Amino acid sequence: MGDRKRVCIVGSGNWGSAIAKVLGTNVKTLDQFETQINMWVFEEDINGRKLTEIINTDHENVKYLPGHKIPENVIAIPDVVEAAKDADILVFVIPHQFLPKICGQLKSSVKPTAVGISLIKGFNMKEGGGIALISSVVEDTLHIPCAVLMGANIADEVASENYCEATIGIKQKEHGTLLKKLFQADYFRIVVCEDEDTVEICGALKNIVAVGAGFADGLGYGDNTKAAVIRLGLMEMVKFCEAFYHGSSQSTFLESCGVADLVTTCYAGRNRKVAEAFVKSKKSIEELEKEMLNGQKLQGPPTAEEVNFMLKSKGMEDRFPMFTAVHKICKGQLPVEEFINCLKNHPEHM
Amino acid sequence: MGDRKRVCIVGSGNWGSAIAKVLGTNVKTLDQFETQINMWVFEEDINGRKLTEIINTDHENVKYLPGHKIPENVIAIPDVVEAAKDADILVFVIPHQFLPKICGQLKSSVKPTAVGISLIKGFNMKEGGGIALISSVVEDTLHIPCAVLMGANIADEVASENYCEATIGIKQKEHGTLLKKLFQADYFRIVVCEDEDTVEICGALKNIVAVGAGFADGLGYGDNTKAAVIRLGLMEMVKFCEAFYHGSSQSTFLESCGVADLVTTCYAGRNRKVAEAFVKSKKSIEELEKEMLNGQKLQGPPTAEEVNFMLKSKGMEDRFPMFTAVHKICKGQLPVEEFINCLKNHPEHM
Repeated sequence: MGDRKRVCIVGSGNWGSAIAKVLGTNVKTLDQFETQINMWVFEEDINGRKLTEIINTDHENVKYLPGHKIPENVIAIPDVVEAAKDADILVFVIPHQFLPKICGQLKSSVKPTAVGISLIKGFNMKEGGGIALISSVVEDTLHIPCAVLMGANIADEVASENYCEATIGIKQKEHGTLLKKLFQADYFRIVVCEDEDTVEICGALKNIVAVGAGFADGLGYGDNTKAAVIRLGLMEMVKFCEAFYHGSSQSTFLESCGVADLVTTCYAGRNRKVAEAFVKSKKSIEELEKEMLNGQKLQGPPTAEEVNFMLKSKGMEDRFPMFTAVHKICKGQLPVEEFINCLKNHPEHM
Repeated sequence: MGDRKRVCIVGSGNWGSAIAKVLGTNVKTLDQFETQINMWVFEEDINGRKLTEIINTDHENVKYLPGHKIPENVIAIPDVVEAAKDADILVFVIPHQFLPKICGQLKSSVKPTAVGISLIKGFNMKEGGGIALISSVVEDTLHIPCAVLMGANIADEVASENYCEATIGIKQKEHGTLLKKLFQADYFRIVVCEDEDTVEICGALKNIVAVGAGFADGLGYGDNTKAAVIRLGLMEMVKFCEAFYHGSSQSTFLESCGVADLVTTCYAGRNRKVAEAFVKSKKSIEELEKEMLNGQKLQGPPTAEEVNFMLKSKGMEDRFPMFTAVHKICKGQLPVEEFINCLKNHPEHM
């Protein structure tokens, strides 16, 4: 019993709650893990009751994943240090802007032998510009290794146990087997991939491409053009990894984190949807976020900005015409009608 | 002038007519080609006028590509031997079942120095079972090299000059430059790829995956599952090329012929549409072809059958669970409700 790994889920939003269902169910039958999972919940008042109390009594996150039961062995805890203190495996699934603060709180109490896994899609902005991978924020602050899990995973569909896939990116092979055991279910199929940086970067860059796909939709182009936008976006993702991260493998882009998540985001995601509305409504991205997303922020435009900072500093904008055009259009520096023209002399066609 | 290459388009359906517009426009300004292009047209009577006469007078294929002008330097000719006799470049764009007969007719008159390029998606059935590539039928019958052009190219959208991409697959490098010159337009962007077999095989296998995507849609699964079906289909395409054709490169699957054409077919194609209806209506594929396609045949089910013949003969059905399941479901040997179950222990997840 002493060898059983304790799992803590840091976060309890839509995706965190869905993954709590997967992990809570899995650990009940797996010898490698303690049966109780702690889940850090940012405390909120829901009609006079605490969210942690609702989760621990009714076993449902009524705010972020209504209609799905979370297993009773998942215990909601409002203090993140308390929740994480004995954990061997820390699953990070919070909005990326909260990560540095949370890591700061955990810093002095986290087990030195713990392993992290980030389910967070996006980049962390470095002070002074440029990007840092979310996993590296965890690694650098907590001094523990941090894997990633990415893929075409809409939370509600995972909670409904609809068949899907995900990719776990790792640097150290020995963590792969354990993490796959923890996450894989009959309906949630895992491929472990040792090209961790690429796995993580795909999850952020896809949102830039989805904005481009939304522009193409809004401009009234058909299926051919959209396919070209998605593919050229994928090629810019490949080139970006080659240019800024070493040892990237093309086969990683064929995993769920790559082509599958990209395609889903370009057809069904909200970056696409808002970008389409941007063309048709002539409103700004900020106005549309207020109207369409209840004030939540899109990830595509800021990611395009962060990436543009890196491309510009290396004089590489010309090699990434789509990433560059998406950024300029979102910033009002280029009319959206020019979007497809920017792709006409794409380096891929030289 | 003596060096200018003569181009003949063998075929004048929807895609043939769209490509005639691209090529006819291109050759007017390119030194490498004769300005006149012959187009073989299967003669039909359209309200008392011959189709060749309509094309040569009104410069429109009113039956197969109405609403788009074909350049006046494209001359419709009803006799295929006559159309092709002096051609240096033969562009094959006819339904694949007519190819052996047409090649038989051209056999004794084709220029020995001519080069072919096939725009035909699909396989040719070998007598006794198994598949032959369309390009190899041209090569073996006419004793000329034959390249291929594949990609996410819905004919009407190309004729409307909507931006898109295509992949030219070649075996001999020297043909790549000339063919790219002939086909590339401002809105029709070409990547030349020396992995010809893979380029061609993608164009046939994608239809099997699209049937699977249609099953997932019909069964009511969401975006995650569809993304998984598309990706696992792509991985089976990769494995099929590895198993049956040598020297296949993963990067080819990232070209327009690969992921782009696959995605478009799985979202917008007719194989997907009929497969979805198959689940919902409980009618046979044959009945649905009659009802939904005016009697035209889908390419996915027969391709799945041909591929299954090959997999079975090598004892490889287990390694291709999607291709196998699609075939069995189309044949009524497996209930469609079992489709996703067949993917649960996919070799990709081992």
